[in-house]
Amino acid sequence: MNNMTDIGARSKQAQRILAKSGGAVIDKALYAIAAALEANSAFILEENAKDIRNGRGNGLSEALIDRLTLTQARIGSMADGLRCVAASENPVGRVLWGETRPNGMKIEKVSVPIGVIAVIFEARPNVTADAAAICLKAGNSVILKGGKEAINSNKAVADVMRQALAKSGLPEDCIILIENISREATVELMRLNGYVDLLIPRGGAGLIRSVVENSTVPVIETGVGNCHIYIDKDADLNMAADIVFNAKTSRVSVCNACESLLIHKDIAEMALLTAGEKLREKDVEIRGDEAVCEILPYAVPANDDDWGTEYLDYKISVKTVENIDEAIAHIAKYGTGHSEAIITESYSAAEKFKNEVDAAAVYVNASTRFTDGGEFGFGAEIGISTQKLHARGPLGVAHMVSEKYVISGNGQIR
Amino acid sequence: MNNMTDIGARSKQAQRILAKSGGAVIDKALYAIAAALEANSAFILEENAKDIRNGRGNGLSEALIDRLTLTQARIGSMADGLRCVAASENPVGRVLWGETRPNGMKIEKVSVPIGVIAVIFEARPNVTADAAAICLKAGNSVILKGGKEAINSNKAVADVMRQALAKSGLPEDCIILIENISREATVELMRLNGYVDLLIPRGGAGLIRSVVENSTVPVIETGVGNCHIYIDKDADLNMAADIVFNAKTSRVSVCNACESLLIHKDIAEMALLTAGEKLREKDVEIRGDEAVCEILPYAVPANDDDWGTEYLDYKISVKTVENIDEAIAHIAKYGTGHSEAIITESYSAAEKFKNEVDAAAVYVNASTRFTDGGEFGFGAEIGISTQKLHARGPLGVAHMVSEKYVISGNGQIR
Repeated sequence: MNNMTDIGARSKQAQRILAKSGGAVIDKALYAIAAALEANSAFILEENAKDIRNGRGNGLSEALIDRLTLTQARIGSMADGLRCVAASENPVGRVLWGETRPNGMKIEKVSVPIGVIAVIFEARPNVTADAAAICLKAGNSVILKGGKEAINSNKAVADVMRQALAKSGLPEDCIILIENISREATVELMRLNGYVDLLIPRGGAGLIRSVVENSTVPVIETGVGNCHIYIDKDADLNMAADIVFNAKTSRVSVCNACESLLIHKDIAEMALLTAGEKLREKDVEIRGDEAVCEILPYAVPANDDDWGTEYLDYKISVKTVENIDEAIAHIAKYGTGHSEAIITESYSAAEKFKNEVDAAAVYVNASTRFTDGGEFGFGAEIGISTQKLHARGPLGVAHMVSEKYVISGNGQIR
Repeated sequence: MNNMTDIGARSKQAQRILAKSGGAVIDKALYAIAAALEANSAFILEENAKDIRNGRGNGLSEALIDRLTLTQARIGSMADGLRCVAASENPVGRVLWGETRPNGMKIEKVSVPIGVIAVIFEARPNVTADAAAICLKAGNSVILKGGKEAINSNKAVADVMRQALAKSGLPEDCIILIENISREATVELMRLNGYVDLLIPRGGAGLIRSVVENSTVPVIETGVGNCHIYIDKDADLNMAADIVFNAKTSRVSVCNACESLLIHKDIAEMALLTAGEKLREKDVEIRGDEAVCEILPYAVPANDDDWGTEYLDYKISVKTVENIDEAIAHIAKYGTGHSEAIITESYSAAEKFKNEVDAAAVYVNASTRFTDGGEFGFGAEIGISTQKLHARGPLGVAHMVSEKYVISGNGQIR
């Protein structure tokens, strides 16, 4: 059952049938899965309760227990998410480009499913349904490997989804949950070339590092966000304080939260007094360079590690810079290519920052917290890509496709 | 000089300057490099002669010596290739999509350089210039690692290009040739995460396997082509014979050559007699299944390995199939996702093949040999992608870009 090559072969076989079935059948199955999750919520909640009991027994933090916990309302959200994905545009079969060559051959570029997508994620059972829906919608089968803390919940959700698939006339192997959660099995999954076309890790820095280090199948790196806000000398300082406060404190555990603040030296004092006071309202620890510590008596001296740290906590590193070039160079050195913002009223500074900062999302006068599939209008997302290949930023249904060239000839030879 | 991290850092630094310099400066530099290659052809030919002498001394085959050999005319072609790339459209800075969100934030998706691209290739010195031009045009710096047989030629070409870059006011480190060709250094290059944004192997199956196996940086797999032609029962058999002959014999060493022929059983005899006779003209060895060997007395029995083998030689495997479904399933099992063709006059068969075969290029009634950047109208190419991510098929200048989201706000918080 848990032989990885066998799982890969089953998933690939199921995907071939899925791809042939067409968009209407897939959408109907997604609605059926949504209904089945709601109809089986009592069973799912029972299984979830086991994970919560085990988690408490193993001393999981309350934050982790909260991420692990399903409720009737959360199952309803999962089902609504599936319906949203079902209602979205079919990304497959689009003619993206076409041309007739001088020899009469017609070439068309058409969007096609990627194939088999593996998703490795941590202890959030709702990812099971989200990830499956986004992959299926684009004609891909999915192999899911969740955290061991959520194994009973994930099994329950996957079982319900698989049954609904079968009832809809689609192979239940379009969704396979890997139950054997050994490290060896996980590494084997990362090396299933010929079966797995794409692997998406969804979780913290450690998980992503392990996937990048061990995988031989193509990977889209997601998630790690050491996001900066640079307050330029021409910034509206009240706007700057509001944006920094929002980006740092509205939700500290997410990848688009601000982790580091850069401030032009000419306005450092005013900016720090305004923004620093606001951050103090939520007891944010400020780790500053020398100039910052002189201005804010409550700041703690930063060390070199601070500039590269994604705190995911009520902490922020703060550095003064000579000019915008130093800010851009600092971001190039310490940023993770996720989300970077400038606060400025200067046209030239805004343009320079937009052009020269290389990240998935580059903001002028807005919070980094907007880097999100929903906020960008893409609907559900499977992660935020921080690499340069295939797709960057929020990954939605539209990105879960590949392409192929279809050539119609009448005997052409070369 | 050959410390890999140092090379990565220099390349990244050079790329930041390159990206800021703009399309006109890059195009001027590409024209200057073309002129410099021609002006320094005597020096390049002298260095190339050393490699040829060494190659002969080491017993390289004449085919390899030919690939290694530069002439005045070949240097002229390299220069012309550079001028073509210079004259092509700038792929960077395009607004690919844009929308104003309900909160007033404007989001634009813009094409940007990928960053640092590493190319590992075998003993073809012309790749040095081609690959550099394609990468530079899209604002990327390039790290080149060629085969040791061509080290003197590659050094000469790279030196001339670097000098021309410097004279054009661009950092010469936009092109770095790795001279230390140890296996350890190569593996180090494959693991330069944080510096190398994309690695493209260009060469045979062994090189590509090694890159996939060892790399932790994102890779685009290229090149391995176990390409099939399926002769349907409704095929025009003369057309089929011409296309098979062209796809197999016009150039046997290339990845878009046909390696395997599938024939509907109902027309197997006629098809084999027509196509087989034609292939005999060039002494192509036919490795057939039982039915094929019965029809063609000169066919050799195929074993299981034949179906998965990219011969790159005057050999072809030939199998009869019950129907189109068996042909498609065989291709799904043994194909490498490169180029697959059907010969048929049946509308339904053509549509089914186009829809169900998953490969970079799917042909109806045309030779697989057309899968090529030039033939598709893309200009110079850096390889044929056989994976599903980022880009599939011929990789030209237009594919050497990533994207970023640029968000213009006026104080939005979430």
